[in-house]
Parts: sequence; structure tokens; C-alpha cells
Amino acid sequence: MENFQSLSGQEKQQLRASLQKRINEFKAQSLQLDMTRGKPGPEQLDICNGLLSCVDEKHFMTGGGIDTRNYGILDGIAEAKVLFAHYMGVSQAEIIIGGNSSLNMMFDIFAQLVTHGSSTDSTPWFSRRKKFICPVPGYDRHFTICQRFGIEMINVDMNEQGPDIAQVEELVKNDGDIVGMWCVPRYSNPTGYTCSDDVVERLAAMPAKCKDFRIFWDDAYAVHYLEREPEKLLNLLNACKKAGNPDRVFIFASTSKVSFPGGGVAMIAASEKNCAWLKERLFAQTIGPDKINMLRHVVYFKDFAGMLKHMQKQAVIIAPKFMTVHNILTGELEGKEIACWTKPSGGYFISLNTLDNCAKKVVALAGELGVKLTPAGATFPYKKDPQDRNIRIAPTFPGIADLRKATEVLAVCIQYASLL
Amino acid sequence: MENFQSLSGQEKQQLRASLQKRINEFKAQSLQLDMTRGKPGPEQLDICNGLLSCVDEKHFMTGGGIDTRNYGILDGIAEAKVLFAHYMGVSQAEIIIGGNSSLNMMFDIFAQLVTHGSSTDSTPWFSRRKKFICPVPGYDRHFTICQRFGIEMINVDMNEQGPDIAQVEELVKNDGDIVGMWCVPRYSNPTGYTCSDDVVERLAAMPAKCKDFRIFWDDAYAVHYLEREPEKLLNLLNACKKAGNPDRVFIFASTSKVSFPGGGVAMIAASEKNCAWLKERLFAQTIGPDKINMLRHVVYFKDFAGMLKHMQKQAVIIAPKFMTVHNILTGELEGKEIACWTKPSGGYFISLNTLDNCAKKVVALAGELGVKLTPAGATFPYKKDPQDRNIRIAPTFPGIADLRKATEVLAVCIQYASLL
Repeated sequence: MENFQSLSGQEKQQLRASLQKRINEFKAQSLQLDMTRGKPGPEQLDICNGLLSCVDEKHFMTGGGIDTRNYGILDGIAEAKVLFAHYMGVSQAEIIIGGNSSLNMMFDIFAQLVTHGSSTDSTPWFSRRKKFICPVPGYDRHFTICQRFGIEMINVDMNEQGPDIAQVEELVKNDGDIVGMWCVPRYSNPTGYTCSDDVVERLAAMPAKCKDFRIFWDDAYAVHYLEREPEKLLNLLNACKKAGNPDRVFIFASTSKVSFPGGGVAMIAASEKNCAWLKERLFAQTIGPDKINMLRHVVYFKDFAGMLKHMQKQAVIIAPKFMTVHNILTGELEGKEIACWTKPSGGYFISLNTLDNCAKKVVALAGELGVKLTPAGATFPYKKDPQDRNIRIAPTFPGIADLRKATEVLAVCIQYASLL
Repeated sequence: MENFQSLSGQEKQQLRASLQKRINEFKAQSLQLDMTRGKPGPEQLDICNGLLSCVDEKHFMTGGGIDTRNYGILDGIAEAKVLFAHYMGVSQAEIIIGGNSSLNMMFDIFAQLVTHGSSTDSTPWFSRRKKFICPVPGYDRHFTICQRFGIEMINVDMNEQGPDIAQVEELVKNDGDIVGMWCVPRYSNPTGYTCSDDVVERLAAMPAKCKDFRIFWDDAYAVHYLEREPEKLLNLLNACKKAGNPDRVFIFASTSKVSFPGGGVAMIAASEKNCAWLKERLFAQTIGPDKINMLRHVVYFKDFAGMLKHMQKQAVIIAPKFMTVHNILTGELEGKEIACWTKPSGGYFISLNTLDNCAKKVVALAGELGVKLTPAGATFPYKKDPQDRNIRIAPTFPGIADLRKATEVLAVCIQYASLL
């Protein structure tokens, strides 16, 4: 197809008219489609329904003889530690199993840092000037946590190899107010990029002016692959230990998009010193997370291989959805030089960039046609995309037919907005 | 039996010798008994096992059409709000359903107050001088939260009608640093006392120098009755609304000792303004609590009457345990004027007072005989019982035979220590 830049005035007018015709046709269909949320579709959840009943009146004790129904154990039953330590590639002494939300665990660590300081320096962050590095585009809920605690956010580009590492190194080395950074290291939200070994090693080893600089490493899509096998990611905790910075990182994971988003298990991997620091709070905070639900996961998945096998089944459901979006975008937009988008081999999102200053228009227009997209800007701190070009596409929840229609609408809106 | 005070020197010596003989007999038995924790016994949990499998692959949608497996809903599914609003005696607009731990919800509110201030005054508590009123004896985990956030604790006596209300009124009226108070209002931990209507109404209406004074009302034993029906407790939220102080109170409850301590559902009741304030944090903190487990509780108990019926079954199991302790203590200690203890009609504990300066000795001695008791002092802030006399007895977990033996040991230790 032809590059939009090379169209004559008349050609543009014709194109606009034909797009307007398609827009009118969409309008007539009174669509109600939703591509906003990185939510598993019901078919993905159905293949995990066995989880609901695998713990029952005959099976509620752990192999180690713990009654999961009763009180006790702050940081997870031993069997869950075995399973998820394997999942996260750390030792059982370096993992804490929580409730159903890894976001909750991230938030709570911020809350703890703000009121009690870190394991390295017990000065509370509360009264300190603090900044965070945020790879962009990124995950809005991460940015919300920073905002909640009055932490200034600094954008750094998320590239195919991970966050722009030279820029990160420069910032962290020189600015002592930079207390930490976010990163979704694998199949990143929304780009789908995975950090290279070089980036991981440099993040682990880079000098930091702030002596308790922390990396929040949200490995939300550790086994969420669409192709033959998950992408390899160097273990940042191990890299940090090797580099002499063992306490630099908190790694987060969950089964939210492995089993059930509403009833999964979340976890943190960290140095033993950081784990001890976390347990100080846990002891004051809670009677301990739901052990019955941990046991369900252990019984249902059995081991890490069981989790991988389960994720293969999910890939069979999801991969065609990613392909559908990609094929329609390609068919509609290729060669026109008005949009580019990622083609992830895992995760939950596709990141699409329009021409500058088009994203808001596209999302608004699609909304008028009954297709809800994640608000433009949501993938940036303060909801401000400086170039107003990034759109996050979440293909997993809708059925294929809806997805096809929604992507067509999106592609038409992109073309139309590019001509305004 | 004879009052210990009136014994002659020789009588005391004889008594000591006979107690020493019993102590030696206990020693020879190498006992290993545990009365430390307010934990349900396995039989109590067994009668709730249907909860484990009532949600299965065919039943995971709410009546309102919500897929409990997936993301969404921050403050609880509608059906859980209906059930637990009834349980807590508030409207569905005044309740937030959480995860499995009400302690966690209490802690998080403190954390929020410390970093963000209250719904009345957004000045963070962080840099403010702050004190809390703690009815004593009370629940150690409450005191731990205060300590964690550097809040000075002030002891106030817990009487049969509730916290010494005249003392509370005086303190709250005059000291603006008193930002809040704890209270377990029904079958209180450990005394078993329930607040009278007069105390509830005066707590609601008393003038407070601190304009965002808050009462943490931990109604942990709302339906945990041993007799015909639960003790009536005036609803403090309603009383606060009537008194023009709607935002003064957070009420906490859970099913930890209704269904499963490790997998129950916790909840908060508060004014709509406070609920909105709580949701501000929840939005940043979590993807929402486990809805599947909420649904389990709704399906299993059906309604509040179902919960009460279930608790009657628990009472049948627990009441004889309380009676066992009471009868043995009476048989061993009555008339000797060396100990008094409460006879609760609900809850999880019996509170026993020895002579002054005896509790630590008793607990240590019992420990030597293989009977673990809650550490003396644990029921007071900073673990300091000024009279060293209070011992918390938790009769629910051990079987009747163990309980009998453990109570005998306790009674012998009390007598022996009273003669030292």
C-alpha cells in the first residue's frame, strides 16, 4: 500500500471519503467491543477449572502435615515455596508467597519503604525527595503506586533489549534522589519486549548514588509465551548477587494469568536480607495469606513442568488472537507509514504507535464507534504520552470475531486520524 | 477450700510439699500441651469442609453474572456485601469486603493514616505525635500494630461493661495527641466481656480533642457464642452516625473463626465517606481480593441465619471445652483467693488473674511441665502487665483430655507460685 506521505491532496480526499464510508458502516452496527483490559478470556479460565475442586474435604493437609484451613505460616507453605521457587528461579529461602495480588505486594513494599525505610537504610522514605525511573510505555498501575506516594517519575525508553540501559546508568549514577525503578522484564506490558542478558547484568552491576536503590522487577509474564518455549530471561536476583548488590531487587510474579486473576497466588523473590525485612512487616500486618489456595495450586499444577504444560494450552487459545490483530493491522496499515506495532511472542499486549499527536484522536474515534480502547496516555506516567502516539492493544479477552471487528475499527480510525 | 492467706506457716509447708509431689508427677508424664493460640480445633473446621467444594467448575459465576475467576471488583461481590452487611448490621454502601485477614485490613488503615492522613484531615500521621487508648487486658496483635507505627499506647481497664468509659472520655477530651483507640467489643479478647449500650453510646458521642479521632472496633467474635444466642451489641457505626460522628469508627469482622482461619473472608464497615477514603487506597493497592472465596462463603452459608446455625454447631464443640477449664479451675482454686477468672458466654478466651507478681512464674513453671501458655504480659501493650497477674487461656484447640490435663497443671502451678 501507499505511503500516506506521498498521497496528493486529491488522493487524500478520496481516501478520507472512503474511510468515512466505512466509519458510517461501523456506526450503523452499534458495536460494543472492549479491548481495554489485559484479562484472560473465559476459555483460558475454563481449562483451569480443575483448580476449584482439587482441594476438598479429604485433601486440605499439606504433604508436610500442615492443616491449610487453620492459622499459621506467614510466608507460604513449604510445597508452594518449592513450586514457585522453581517458577522464579530462586532458592526457597529467597521467596515469600502472598495472597492473590502481586500488585498488592508491590504497593505494600512501597508503603513499608515510605514509613520504615529499606533493609539497607532504615530512614523512612517519607520525608525524603524521591524519584523513580519508569520505562515507557509501561504499566499504568505501577505509575499509580508512585503517584500515591508522591514519587516523581522519570521516563526512560523501553527498547527491544529492555529499558535504555545507558540512560538508566547515567541517571542512577548521578542522581541520589532516584530511589528505584520499575521494569516488566519479560513480554513487557505493553511492548512485549524482553530484557537482554546485557541489560540485566548492567542493571545488577551499575553504580547507584542512592545507597538503597531498588529495582521493582515485575516478572508478570514469566511463562506466558505464545511460541514453542518461554523467552529466556537472566535472573536478576542472581545477577545482583554476583555483582555484589544482592538487596537491589524485588522480583514479583503471580499466577494471576496462569490460573485465575481473581484467585491466584502472588509471590516475591528477594535476597534473604530483604525477605527478613519483609517478614518484619508481615508479622505485624497479617495472620498470613490463604494457604488453602496455595495448596490448590500445588495439587493442581504439581510442578513447574505442569505450569508450563498448562501455559501451552493457554497459548493455543491466545496465539490466534495475537495473530488476528497482527494480520488485520498488516492488511490495513502496512506500507502506509502511519503506524507501527510490536509482534510479541508472549505476554498480554501489543503496543502500537501512531503518528505523533494521533493516539488520543484514534481512541476517541474508536470509542464513538463502540470500540473501547485503553485511554491514550495510560501507558505513561501521569497519563502523559509526550508524543501522544502510543496505544495499548489487549487481544486476549474478546472472542476472535469481536477482535477482528475491533481491530478493523482501530485500523480505520488510525487511517482517518492520520489524515486529519 | 481454705483461703491461702489464712494458712499457717506449717500448713503452707505441707501444701507446698503436696503440690511439689503433683508437680513431680506431671514432670514424669513428659507432657507436650499447647494452650497458647486462639485457634479453632480441627473438629470445628471439619464441619465447614463443604465450603471447600461448593464452588466448582459448574458454579463460579455470581447471581449477578460476575465471573469470580477473572479480574474486577475492588470491594467485594454484591452477594458477599448482602450477606456480610447483614452480619455486621450495616448497609451495603457501608461495607468493604477484603481478603482473608481482618488484621491485614486494620494494619493497612494505620499505614494509610500514617502516610495520607484520614478522611477528615489529610495531614499524614507520620510526623505527628500520636497516642492510642488500649483496653487491657487486650489483643497483642493490636498492640503490635501501634508499636510498628511508633504510636504510644495508654492502658485503660477493660471492665465487664467495656473499656472504663469515664477514663476514656477524660483522656479523649483533653489530649489531642490521642488519635484513636482499640476495642474488641464483643466476647473481648481475652476477657470475654461485651460492651454495654451505655458504653457504646458514650464512645460514639464523647467529645474528642483530636478532630480525626478513630475507634478501631474489632468485632472478631460477632457470632461466636456458647449459649443460646449471641450477645447483643449496639451497632457503633449507627451510634456514631446518630451522635454526629459518622467517621469516627472502623468496624472489623471476619469469618476466620466462622469458616477457616486460613481461608476466610475479612471485612470493614465504615461511613460512606470512610469507605470512599479506603477505596482510594485500594485502587492503587490491589487488583481486588479473591472473589472466588467470597462466593464460596455466599454459597455455603446462604444467609446470616445460615451463619448463626453453623455457629451453633461450633458452640456444641467449644462450650464443653470452656466448661472443662472452668470446672477444673473451680475445683482446684475456688475459695483460695489466689486467682479469679472470667466465664465468657462466647469468644475464644478465658482471662485469669493470679495474685500480683505471679503470672510470669506460673507461665514459666507450666512451661517446665510441658504446658505452653501465652506468655505472661502478652495481653498488655509493650508486653508489660504492670501487676504481672494476667494469663490468657485459649481452650478451643486442644482436645478435652489434653485440656483437662493442661488446666490441672495450670491450677497446680498457680497454687505453687502463690506460695513462693
